[in-house]
Amino acid sequence: MARNASLSGFPEWLPQERLVEQHVLDTLRRTFELHGFGSVETRAVETVGQLLRKGEIDKEVYALSRLQDDDGNAATGAREDPNQLALHFDLTVPFARYVVENAGYLSFPFRRYQIQKVWRGERPQEGRAREFTQADIDVVGDGVLPFRYDVELALVIAEALSALPIPAFKLRINNRKLAEGFYRGIGLADTAGVLRSIDKLEKIGAEAVAGLLTSELGATAEQAAQALALASIRTEDTSFVAKVRALGVTNELMEEGLNELEQVIAAAVTSAPGSVVADLSIARGLDYYTGTVYETVLVGHEALGSICSGGRYDALASKGSRKFPGVGLSIGVTRLVSRILSQEFAKSSRSVPTAVLVALADEDSWTAAQEVAASLRARGISTEVAAKADKFGKQIKYADKRGIPYVWFTDGDGAHQVKDIRSGEQLAADPGTWMPPAEDLKPQIVTA
Amino acid sequence: MARNASLSGFPEWLPQERLVEQHVLDTLRRTFELHGFGSVETRAVETVGQLLRKGEIDKEVYALSRLQDDDGNAATGAREDPNQLALHFDLTVPFARYVVENAGYLSFPFRRYQIQKVWRGERPQEGRAREFTQADIDVVGDGVLPFRYDVELALVIAEALSALPIPAFKLRINNRKLAEGFYRGIGLADTAGVLRSIDKLEKIGAEAVAGLLTSELGATAEQAAQALALASIRTEDTSFVAKVRALGVTNELMEEGLNELEQVIAAAVTSAPGSVVADLSIARGLDYYTGTVYETVLVGHEALGSICSGGRYDALASKGSRKFPGVGLSIGVTRLVSRILSQEFAKSSRSVPTAVLVALADEDSWTAAQEVAASLRARGISTEVAAKADKFGKQIKYADKRGIPYVWFTDGDGAHQVKDIRSGEQLAADPGTWMPPAEDLKPQIVTA
Repeated sequence: MARNASLSGFPEWLPQERLVEQHVLDTLRRTFELHGFGSVETRAVETVGQLLRKGEIDKEVYALSRLQDDDGNAATGAREDPNQLALHFDLTVPFARYVVENAGYLSFPFRRYQIQKVWRGERPQEGRAREFTQADIDVVGDGVLPFRYDVELALVIAEALSALPIPAFKLRINNRKLAEGFYRGIGLADTAGVLRSIDKLEKIGAEAVAGLLTSELGATAEQAAQALALASIRTEDTSFVAKVRALGVTNELMEEGLNELEQVIAAAVTSAPGSVVADLSIARGLDYYTGTVYETVLVGHEALGSICSGGRYDALASKGSRKFPGVGLSIGVTRLVSRILSQEFAKSSRSVPTAVLVALADEDSWTAAQEVAASLRARGISTEVAAKADKFGKQIKYADKRGIPYVWFTDGDGAHQVKDIRSGEQLAADPGTWMPPAEDLKPQIVTA
Repeated sequence: MARNASLSGFPEWLPQERLVEQHVLDTLRRTFELHGFGSVETRAVETVGQLLRKGEIDKEVYALSRLQDDDGNAATGAREDPNQLALHFDLTVPFARYVVENAGYLSFPFRRYQIQKVWRGERPQEGRAREFTQADIDVVGDGVLPFRYDVELALVIAEALSALPIPAFKLRINNRKLAEGFYRGIGLADTAGVLRSIDKLEKIGAEAVAGLLTSELGATAEQAAQALALASIRTEDTSFVAKVRALGVTNELMEEGLNELEQVIAAAVTSAPGSVVADLSIARGLDYYTGTVYETVLVGHEALGSICSGGRYDALASKGSRKFPGVGLSIGVTRLVSRILSQEFAKSSRSVPTAVLVALADEDSWTAAQEVAASLRARGISTEVAAKADKFGKQIKYADKRGIPYVWFTDGDGAHQVKDIRSGEQLAADPGTWMPPAEDLKPQIVTA
């Protein structure tokens, strides 16, 4: 399983690895649909103008050009052209465009999940691919969106992650209003600048962040110390509220943020005890978040980075004066699956869907064997028919190599027997009624 | 449903349309897995060298470039560079590369299905998009692959198509050996040239094809007439064999092809009567087919083009002297779904997965409502909780707009009732045991 991708940054799975990925994707889909999220897909391409509307990340974008244009000339990059097509780098920006374009056909609040590949031209490294799958859920309102969705999304995502074959996770939650109000309360006006500095805390440490705050943002040593004191608060319950108050800062926006975060943490702690933490150092790089922010680490695998992030955005999508505020989270599926496979957190019990191989006694029995197979498939049993009447030993070996648990034999008199090739047990069976044990019906994803 | 894509050639579906697409994709996946095909995905990008290894279609390929390279210069197209990355235009070429790269990890004959988007920079028109989904099945052997797989794949694909909400289809099957042997038998040596001309039969007619054969390939009028006579044979059973023989041509390769096609048609006619036809005019454009070729039209929608095509290829993938012959078919999912939606062959019974909305009597009951929802979800019932304690009429309207069939009420004493908002019937219910009728559990895809 330690194969290298033939093209760096573009992982591909073997069939038995893909079964693990399918299990992850199916589990997410089932959880999202149980919570009333419907599926949407958007095209893989956006215009460069749309992609770069927010944030400065144009180094990471793959632009498209027809290999040969209609006149037969080689295409040239056209970075200046906002209508230039490029591959999307996340699912939030395309979704915002989709909502604005289709607003007349959607019912708001609109809840959707979206599971697709995205592309970033970054330098590949562990946990960072150039092509990877994201699984997003968002709820978007027309004009307003009740805060309660910020609470609900934390619960949905905790339930979804809990259903995956991964180690314990920590969903770290903060609120931008809390942080921004606090910074204003201590007299720091460039709140975005402070957030950007605080965002570097884990990378460069508290001392260096204090240096940035004083040198670049004109903070006094005391203001820097206050900002860092806020960022150091981390509680697994709502006791962060008292800790913030103890810092002695008053501000209306901060109070709003405190109240919101308290609601999210109170509900999430009840629903997913031990998996949720109020972490006031979480800033999230992207500028469009305006309230709750989420990120998630696997316990013991913190260096992998966040496996699930998101937040509340009040102004990502708008159509004239009409605003579509939303809240959403995005799971890094490829990052998770890569780690599940490399650490063998889970694997598939076999490499094929097939539960039964129908063996051939002679070449003429192929049509009859197809009828046996059709009977079994009608009850949901994945079945293959041998392509050649090789010696039975060779046909059994075909099944054995793939982990197919059962081989079916029909003799010249039309009598049927089925053999469990693991135990060697062979019994008479009726193609119209026989069922394998439930655990043999489909490949099982077995956790370590 | 007659919305235009905001970017020509890149269709996007509304949530209720996406449910139809998901039904198609889920049905194909289930059928393929029941027949023992496992899932594989390949990366979206290949090198230009890999993509253009076969055939001359470089006008259709989308090349990639980083919008800004590492030095900050605008990227330029590099058509001459075989390592240039580009988006795949089908799933067969990437699969052939995948097989060669991973041969040491796969069990042969290797059967896989692959459902992914592909991209072609073509002029968009009805049934021809720039981004579209294909669903492929292939079986690939190591060195040799028994001919019987050509028969089996016809059966699998007929079963898969029969399970979709589409009109009757015709799976037209031919065999290149038959055609090539026949052409040689009548003294035409450039068999590929003859096939290319015959491929134009439906577009330009018999007279024009005869003209091409005589003017460009040096055929006599009689040879052209013979080639056209072969191409005019079309039978829904194995009687094509006698019709070919009646043309009086003898050739060993032709006999081999006749025998193979007879086997495919005999089995397919039994398994999918009325849906299969031996059609000796089918040539398929791509050069890599070497035996059986398939294509499929929807009856009454022939102008849409083929919705499912493929064939046997003996030399698409090789590793040194090791050859990996295969046979496969590809379903044009987007082409089918576009037609299903535009002709309303099928639609979804509601626009969301949700079966139950749990209403709120007051704001404080949200947490209790979450518990009701969790009970229902534990039995697979998709459930949403209202985000606000609006008047019940407004909460019911939320459900009604989305087609959510049931609204759940809990009164101050904890007594539960569930209302079918279509009939207005409201009954006492227990969140731990209540089930909706099976047809209300999930959105149903209803055929017209």
